Amino acid sequence: MAAEIVNPPSDTGSEDEFFDPAFALHRGGKMAIQATVPVNDKDDLSLAYTPGVAKVCSAIAEQPELVHDYTWKSQVVAVVTDGSAVLGLGDIGPEASLPVMEGKAILFKQFGGVDAVPVALATQDVDEIVETVVRLAPSFGGVNLEDIAAPRCFEIERKLQERLDIPVFHDDQHGTAVVTLAALRNAAKLSGRGLSELRAVISGAGAAGAAIAKFLVEAGIGDVAVTDRKGIVSRDRTDLTAAKREIAELTNKAKLSGSLESALDGADVFIGVSGGTVPEEAVAKMAPGCFVFAMANPNPEVHPDVAHKYAAVVATGRSDFPNQINNVLAFPGIFAGALQVRASRITEGMKLAAAEALAEVVADELSADKVIPSPFDERVAPAVTRAVAAAARAEGVARR
Amino acid sequence: MAAEIVNPPSDTGSEDEFFDPAFALHRGGKMAIQATVPVNDKDDLSLAYTPGVAKVCSAIAEQPELVHDYTWKSQVVAVVTDGSAVLGLGDIGPEASLPVMEGKAILFKQFGGVDAVPVALATQDVDEIVETVVRLAPSFGGVNLEDIAAPRCFEIERKLQERLDIPVFHDDQHGTAVVTLAALRNAAKLSGRGLSELRAVISGAGAAGAAIAKFLVEAGIGDVAVTDRKGIVSRDRTDLTAAKREIAELTNKAKLSGSLESALDGADVFIGVSGGTVPEEAVAKMAPGCFVFAMANPNPEVHPDVAHKYAAVVATGRSDFPNQINNVLAFPGIFAGALQVRASRITEGMKLAAAEALAEVVADELSADKVIPSPFDERVAPAVTRAVAAAARAEGVARR
Repeated sequence: MAAEIVNPPSDTGSEDEFFDPAFALHRGGKMAIQATVPVNDKDDLSLAYTPGVAKVCSAIAEQPELVHDYTWKSQVVAVVTDGSAVLGLGDIGPEASLPVMEGKAILFKQFGGVDAVPVALATQDVDEIVETVVRLAPSFGGVNLEDIAAPRCFEIERKLQERLDIPVFHDDQHGTAVVTLAALRNAAKLSGRGLSELRAVISGAGAAGAAIAKFLVEAGIGDVAVTDRKGIVSRDRTDLTAAKREIAELTNKAKLSGSLESALDGADVFIGVSGGTVPEEAVAKMAPGCFVFAMANPNPEVHPDVAHKYAAVVATGRSDFPNQINNVLAFPGIFAGALQVRASRITEGMKLAAAEALAEVVADELSADKVIPSPFDERVAPAVTRAVAAAARAEGVARR
Repeated sequence: MAAEIVNPPSDTGSEDEFFDPAFALHRGGKMAIQATVPVNDKDDLSLAYTPGVAKVCSAIAEQPELVHDYTWKSQVVAVVTDGSAVLGLGDIGPEASLPVMEGKAILFKQFGGVDAVPVALATQDVDEIVETVVRLAPSFGGVNLEDIAAPRCFEIERKLQERLDIPVFHDDQHGTAVVTLAALRNAAKLSGRGLSELRAVISGAGAAGAAIAKFLVEAGIGDVAVTDRKGIVSRDRTDLTAAKREIAELTNKAKLSGSLESALDGADVFIGVSGGTVPEEAVAKMAPGCFVFAMANPNPEVHPDVAHKYAAVVATGRSDFPNQINNVLAFPGIFAGALQVRASRITEGMKLAAAEALAEVVADELSADKVIPSPFDERVAPAVTRAVAAAARAEGVARR
């Protein structure tokens, strides 16, 4: 992609600017710290810093839960990555991942009012990542794992959830799953069917594919088959990783085996999170009134123009087509809701509540081109926040 | 100190407010994240996040030094603590230290324009702290170590400096030393003497005392003796830690031994960073025209009213007396200067330049009550920043 850079500066200290607007916008980074209390004079300083601050420290030392009241802990999330699976770019390392992590951080702020700090780690070892995040945890109210390669991401998330009493959420998995379920619920509603009547096929068995599959099962989908490069993930395969074996156990009631194309034969739903291409002939064999969610970016697995020939509802990951499956619809509100009630974790119930609230936002405007709200729909984050906070209380993980 | 809390809330979710203004000010924390680029519509998002961000990530992956240009790395410092030596409160742990770390962070911003993030770690093990900070380093342009107990702090700083190519600075040591030297330079100038004519006594052999001693030796002080609870740190003592043995080697040319009181007999300078009390009789035996810097907070080792009976210049750590030795005079400008030129570390020369620039700010207004500028003197941070950046270039550690 470096070929796209016009006039790269000859040295990093030069005043040259890239002509590309993305580079111009990124110069100096995209975020800053802001004091929320005045520090303009001696009196301000004596309250915000010594000696006034000592009383607050002592109070927290005696009553540890006061840290949530008197610091920014409960409003700040660490956006943690190892730089191993960044966007479609792959393993580009921690420094090169920072523009994405900063982007994520400002989306947290803009959409959820949640502060977030990029934490790009110089290790890709599971236990080192886990230990590092556990040591960082006193400073943060939550951990958003981001762009960490599968299957490592599953183990990291599980271990952190076991060891921490703050929400740990891998957005590439669960954020995607929540938004996908919301869109699917509305598509089903539009077509007068229940989730239990649908058979779905997911192309991609990485972080997103695995999480969507599990979440759809949880939500009561009729059946779902997941495919990787070698075809349908089924119990009779001997080449599966532990993570894929788990998927094989949980999915594919129909005991399908074979190719993605064969799985699509008669399927009601296609969900693409793979980046591959699905031939039109395969889409043509899906059930009448099917749904095609081709979410790969920038090139959907099925181009929307092709998908529309066969499908009743088409969604993509792109902002220039209707029905954009965009994680920003979920993660800001999910964390805002969890932090609001100081949830110790994010449960399945909270994620289901988020998906339902997200779907509900457009309940009165439902159409084939609007099964999911726009990322800029201002009703979204408050609705998701409320639903997640309420679910946390109902599930007994809220601490206020 | 919990006795000072009026009406503590019955539970942390209550809407009760403490009546103490420090608690009221601290509610919700003292800082926030701010986006510095717009994310209001689809076009904004496509530049600041996908797909635009991918080009910036790819460029950094190919030319790693571009991370300084296109992320906030080069303007953000991690304020790292293990909560083991917080203010005068001691080992109160990471959560309880957060109000101080947030305070530090907003001082970085207010005084130096430097972004800073509190990183309070759930470990007090030297190697675990070092490994954790090394793994975090890709996300930060510098590391400010804060409120970590001696002698652990020395080893942590040394190991991090060996392993990282960004500035690592323990403010409790070097910030204090820089401001002390600046005040001492001006006091000496006022009395028409050179540093080399002065014999100083430092009460306290912890992080601050050790750093001040080494820095005064570096700056050319005539002689300096450091005392701990057992008296003068001298080569003939057999009870010294490695850190104190190093002090014994570097200081005390006069080969004094015995008590703090005996060391003060005829001394030109007293520097208190211990929190103890020095009896008036001992101050009375100091040399005529002596300087008393009694920096313990909130109770100076010698009350200024007493010190003034014998000393030509009196300084404290308190804002309600003249000549406040306050680290905020140094660390914001030191980091701002180092980050500006992307210094790989903070050298002795950069610290000496900072002390000199700080002293120079009040060169034309010098008086016994003004050997050091006020923390709110707006000339300070720019002067220190310029001096530190220039020194970094001169010493060959600047990367732009």
